[in-house]
Amino acid sequence: MVPRVSETRRGERRPSGNGVPIRILVTGGTFDKEYDELTGRLFFRDTHVQEMLRLGRARLELALETVMMIDSLEMDDAARAAVVERCRGAAERAIVVTHGTDTMVETARALAAAALSDRTIVLTGAMVPYAFGSSDGLFNLGSALSFVQVLPPGVYVAMNGKIFTWDNVTKNRAAGVFQAL
Amino acid sequence: MVPRVSETRRGERRPSGNGVPIRILVTGGTFDKEYDELTGRLFFRDTHVQEMLRLGRARLELALETVMMIDSLEMDDAARAAVVERCRGAAERAIVVTHGTDTMVETARALAAAALSDRTIVLTGAMVPYAFGSSDGLFNLGSALSFVQVLPPGVYVAMNGKIFTWDNVTKNRAAGVFQAL
Amino acid sequence: MVPRVSETRRGERRPSGNGVPIRILVTGGTFDKEYDELTGRLFFRDTHVQEMLRLGRARLELALETVMMIDSLEMDDAARAAVVERCRGAAERAIVVTHGTDTMVETARALAAAALSDRTIVLTGAMVPYAFGSSDGLFNLGSALSFVQVLPPGVYVAMNGKIFTWDNVTKNRAAGVFQAL
Amino acid sequence: MVPRVSETRRGERRPSGNGVPIRILVTGGTFDKEYDELTGRLFFRDTHVQEMLRLGRARLELALETVMMIDSLEMDDAARAAVVERCRGAAERAIVVTHGTDTMVETARALAAAALSDRTIVLTGAMVPYAFGSSDGLFNLGSALSFVQVLPPGVYVAMNGKIFTWDNVTKNRAAGVFQAL
Repeated sequence: MVPRVSETRRGERRPSGNGVPIRILVTGGTFDKEYDELTGRLFFRDTHVQEMLRLGRARLELALETVMMIDSLEMDDAARAAVVERCRGAAERAIVVTHGTDTMVETARALAAAALSDRTIVLTGAMVPYAFGSSDGLFNLGSALSFVQVLPPGVYVAMNGKIFTWDNVTKNRAAGVFQAL
Repeated sequence: MVPRVSETRRGERRPSGNGVPIRILVTGGTFDKEYDELTGRLFFRDTHVQEMLRLGRARLELALETVMMIDSLEMDDAARAAVVERCRGAAERAIVVTHGTDTMVETARALAAAALSDRTIVLTGAMVPYAFGSSDGLFNLGSALSFVQVLPPGVYVAMNGKIFTWDNVTKNRAAGVFQAL
Repeated sequence: MVPRVSETRRGERRPSGNGVPIRILVTGGTFDKEYDELTGRLFFRDTHVQEMLRLGRARLELALETVMMIDSLEMDDAARAAVVERCRGAAERAIVVTHGTDTMVETARALAAAALSDRTIVLTGAMVPYAFGSSDGLFNLGSALSFVQVLPPGVYVAMNGKIFTWDNVTKNRAAGVFQAL
Repeated sequence: MVPRVSETRRGERRPSGNGVPIRILVTGGTFDKEYDELTGRLFFRDTHVQEMLRLGRARLELALETVMMIDSLEMDDAARAAVVERCRGAAERAIVVTHGTDTMVETARALAAAALSDRTIVLTGAMVPYAFGSSDGLFNLGSALSFVQVLPPGVYVAMNGKIFTWDNVTKNRAAGVFQAL
């Protein structure tokens, strides 16, 4: 069950649209894959997140940072450590990490192990490249940027409109969806 | 400032992906406008919300209900009362209302006045019709469906990636964005 | 019946990809309409033809010229005379005119009356704005640019994949298609 | 130089929109590739040509036939022979073949060698899959369907808005464009 904030603490203002500063860390993944018309293969160039934010008319206080541009199957310990370090070094307490779906859960686990206790970190991705026109990426980006503003510190995965804690999520590869354990 | 849930109550499970049942009430608005190629005018046919949910690979427990299909400039007291009644009668405690942006704030006010105290209601919309390919609708839908799962009871507006309480939001018509008062 | 060139004249090279210089005269029409997200109305800004040519990977020898940007219902005698003059003054013998569909046939007639005897002029347009993502514009542009390269001098309308001579075409407004008389 | 039909033969009607029956033979190619969201690989399912024709509001007398669904790098002699046989057996004199770009010229050569003397055959394809939203496929399809209606019997390649005879075209793989020899 998703917890509701049943009451706000005395004297605390409720959501007001003033927003919280958010950092988006881009690591690549299906989200950002493109089609190379010369080779017929998928590849990475620049991230599409900026364009997606523009399309979504996002008016958030955002810092966008590309950490790497890789398929999440190539995400090894060193790469994961780099993501952890960027989160640790971020000035913002709210962080969204765009990530390939295949090993998103493993990176969530590495972030949880790093015990960045005062931060809310939400990982998200896409099943279809944004550039291919029928992507879940825009929906997921809207979802992750929303959850990260209101959830308590912790590490989460936002996929399929749902929010999962890092320790209660798995990718069902056969169905292409994320689900609780 | 957006409140964070700084601690979950003892014994309460944290977000788990099990989800909360959500009702989506469709009222029309730019979200659902289409181009009539015979007359060159914009019009309403069926809602695109179902297609958007499919595109977003949403796996939420959702009930989708079309209340009306109108431009929000045509939303009068009777129409607003109908929206309130649908919210009051809904079995779900989490409700997303898709709505034209021009009078979204007025409907939010009417919903707040109805004092549906145990419900979290999030209004959202779009500046560009979904059918026109460059819409903020998919982003906003992902956003609204996320906020509604975790915010405390109340009436909110989710636009531009932000969340506003009903009493602290206005549409800046010149800029085409929503902002706090 | 569409005539086929049953034989090429002796000594004449067959189509070789070297291309003919083509001028595209833009007059507006549904082709180029956009959605104004502040007013909710359709309007004209710049033509999308350049972007469409890029998308189509067109490698033709093209000159692109915006004559006007109007709804074809506003196309009056003076405007039509301006289109005729641009055709008369063009250095190219092959000309494509993008035009609103409602009065495309009237402009074709005016061009025929001008007796620009050495030119092949093909008018084309769209039923749905290109910017709305589901447009017939890209298809029609590919069609018009092809017909104009190989048809004999004359004035034609290229719509729905078909080619019509100016004196044997009408828009069936109820069905939204062009047909022979 | 592209030949123009400088005069129509006496008694012959000029293009009238009555159309010629056209057969479209689908062989696959980039045109029809899709993204498999479970494996992250490109694959073939059904052809998109029917949807493209609907989008283009094509009103031609068309027969659509899927011969095979393969990458043109896999097009071998047997496959090419199958395409030739379908052309030979077609009731229509105008035939468009959708084909991968890598070996389109080889198939054009095989069709020319078959000496189907009374037929106009136009091969076309795309550099980007139609399903990826930014395709040249719709433009090329409009182009091929137009050329095939008016060119004399022979075998042609329609790409990049140009028309090439089978014996005077090559794919420049480095640039991703077709050009005359």
